Parts: sequence; C-alpha cells; structure tokens
Amino acid sequence: MAIHQALAPAATTIQQAIASRVSIHAFAPGHALADADIEQLVQQATQAPTAFNFQNWRFVAARSPAAKQRLRAVAYGQQKVEDAAVVFIICGSLQAHRRLAEVLQPSVDDGIIALDVADALVNAAHAVHEGNAAVQRDEAIRSASLAAMTLMLAAQGQGWVSCAMSGFDPQGVSQAFALGAEEVPVVLVAVGHAATADERQKRRRPLADVLELV
Amino acid sequence: MAIHQALAPAATTIQQAIASRVSIHAFAPGHALADADIEQLVQQATQAPTAFNFQNWRFVAARSPAAKQRLRAVAYGQQKVEDAAVVFIICGSLQAHRRLAEVLQPSVDDGIIALDVADALVNAAHAVHEGNAAVQRDEAIRSASLAAMTLMLAAQGQGWVSCAMSGFDPQGVSQAFALGAEEVPVVLVAVGHAATADERQKRRRPLADVLELV
Repeated sequence: MAIHQALAPAATTIQQAIASRVSIHAFAPGHALADADIEQLVQQATQAPTAFNFQNWRFVAARSPAAKQRLRAVAYGQQKVEDAAVVFIICGSLQAHRRLAEVLQPSVDDGIIALDVADALVNAAHAVHEGNAAVQRDEAIRSASLAAMTLMLAAQGQGWVSCAMSGFDPQGVSQAFALGAEEVPVVLVAVGHAATADERQKRRRPLADVLELV
Repeated sequence: MAIHQALAPAATTIQQAIASRVSIHAFAPGHALADADIEQLVQQATQAPTAFNFQNWRFVAARSPAAKQRLRAVAYGQQKVEDAAVVFIICGSLQAHRRLAEVLQPSVDDGIIALDVADALVNAAHAVHEGNAAVQRDEAIRSASLAAMTLMLAAQGQGWVSCAMSGFDPQGVSQAFALGAEEVPVVLVAVGHAATADERQKRRRPLADVLELV
C-alpha cells in the first residue's frame, strides 16, 4: 500500500481544477492518502459557506480496507468504493439550529461577529428550522453538497481525482457507520488515483439551454 | 455603471480561492460584470458533476437593476441582492430523468460513453426517479449546490467576491422569474465587489468535531 504525497501542491489554478476535474469511474487500487492529507482536504471543505454559518456537516473518511468494504456493501457494490484511496461520507445535520449558538461563539469571541448579531442569527434560525422537516433536510443537503464540491476541487488541486456518488442505501450507510439520528448521508466522495488516463468529461448542455440573462 | 474585467485571471490557485473566499454581506453598488464574464462563470459552474450526468440545473442571472430589484422583493428585501453586480438564481430540475437521453446524446455521439451505457443510465435514472418526489428534490438541491460552489470559487479566482443565500421566498422567486413548474430555486449566489475590505471568514468548528477516520 503506497501512501502518496500530494502530487501538484499549490500549482493548480481554480480554473484548471474546474476544467480538468472528471468523475472517475475506475480507481487504481492499492493507493492511500496520509491521514494528514485527509485532514487537510476536510479542513478545506469546511471553508464552504452554510446558511446562518450552521456548519451542519460531518465527514466520515473510510480509508481502511475494512471500512471501504463495509461502505461498498451499502453502496450497491460499486467497485470504486473499494478501489479509491478514501471515500468520504459527507453528512448533513437536521438539527443545525440547536447547535448554532455554540458554533458561533468562537466568532463572537474573536470579534468577527457581534453578540447581538449572533443572537439574531440563532433566533432567526430557530424560527425557520424548528419543527420544519422539509427546510431542515433541504439545508442539510445544500450544506453537505457545497462542502463536497469544495473537497473535490481541493483534491484535484493536489493531484488526486474524485467521484461524487449519490447512489447508495442511506439507511444502510447510517447503520454501518453509526451516524446520528439527525444526520443525513448526503453524498459519497471517492478520492484517489485513476485506473486509466483516458476518462473524459461528458459533454455539457449548451449554455443557451441553461443560462438566462435578465 | 463600471463594467469590470476579471481582476485576477488565472493566477489564483484552488487552495487560495478556497481559503480566501468569505461570504460577503455588503456589496459595493455600481459595479457590473460583462455578459461574457457571466457566461464564463456559468460555463465553469456546469462542469460540476451530477448524478447520472443529469445536468439538472438552470441559471437565471439577474444583472439589470430592474431584475435585481424584482429579486430583492422576494428575497426578504436583502440589500445585497440589489448591490451585487449579478445575482444568480440557481435552479434544480425535478424531472431530470425525463431529459437524460437527450442530455447524454452528445457524449454518445463523441464516443465518450457507449450507447448501451447511456441506455442503462437512462433506465436506471427512470427506475430511481420516476414518481419519487423526495429523491427528485434531493437530487435537484444536490446538483444545484455543487454548481453553486463551483461558481463561487470560479468567481473568487477572477477577483470577485460572492455570497450564497438560501433565505428567499421560493414561490415568490418562481413567480417573479417565471421558473418552470419542475424547477426548484435552490440557492441565490450574489457576485460582485465588496463594500469593505474587512469581512472575515467566521471561525470553523474544530476538525475533531467534524471528521471521523475509519
């Protein structure tokens, strides 16, 4: 099992990372990321924005063979889950508002936001989220997805490749990895090395079909 | 009204873009993006991945004063909606599976995916999505959010700042901008210039609270 250092540190522009990223369907097995590199990817992912600054996410990094096999069994047996160096289970929380005061406190302590602003955010978040399951779920998926995209681009910048997967059994993942009752597994993100160099990005819809200027 | 060219073309690394991006709460009014720059941002946003390669998104770029005022009225009167250079209404589609064959055809024509693979994707997407409103909504939010994050980082790389907003009246936005019945406005992304240089990223939760290595 080779543990690789980052291959392209700090040299990839954001434009290059976006243009070069391809969803990889076959990973080369036998590679690993150092825990420090996994931590760095998650640290970058958590710089994504969230409504109310909820930071309503959690990342389970399946990087041991046993964990990846366990995950594969609840992800429709997809080979790439086992072959990737690490697969992140990116979860969103349904109870973000209940933790918000605690999450904001360090920013209040550092003078980044005023206490009355933090209090107003907490009150507004409770008003919008408490008892509203649909809003809670939407926000969990939105936050986790923003983090997932940041993580994939960060990985691309370090010379790794990635694949996001929404095809898995959510209840199975929750049980196999002991997720909290308030946690939704939103997306799996596999990171590692590609098995082949010839995977190409699929053609995108014409801009005229997806953009309206008003 | 000053129309600005990109300020930092191609020089920003992905790591810098992630680390430097801050959700901006006050935009400097009186700036605009050229339509070509708006198009370039959306082109980059559409390089985000989607399940089944759905590309189940649409971007309404509110950049005229009238459009921004109309949007502000259905976004709880937030001043930044009017002051930003452009506010993207990023929509997800609930009927992605019904358009998938058409979306995949150019990739089949170019030999990027085989016809039988495309057919299998279309069949699988129909099996999972048809009649399943919850799955449709989750996927619409996931896809639009992945695109939103890509757009924000692309903008950061060009020297603009951004703010994602989920605080708006979805029905009001749908009516004001004539969204399709199958379209969900998932997130607003304001892009422009900051009113002040001193907005700081809020403190993030400790890594130990959000990452589990297994």
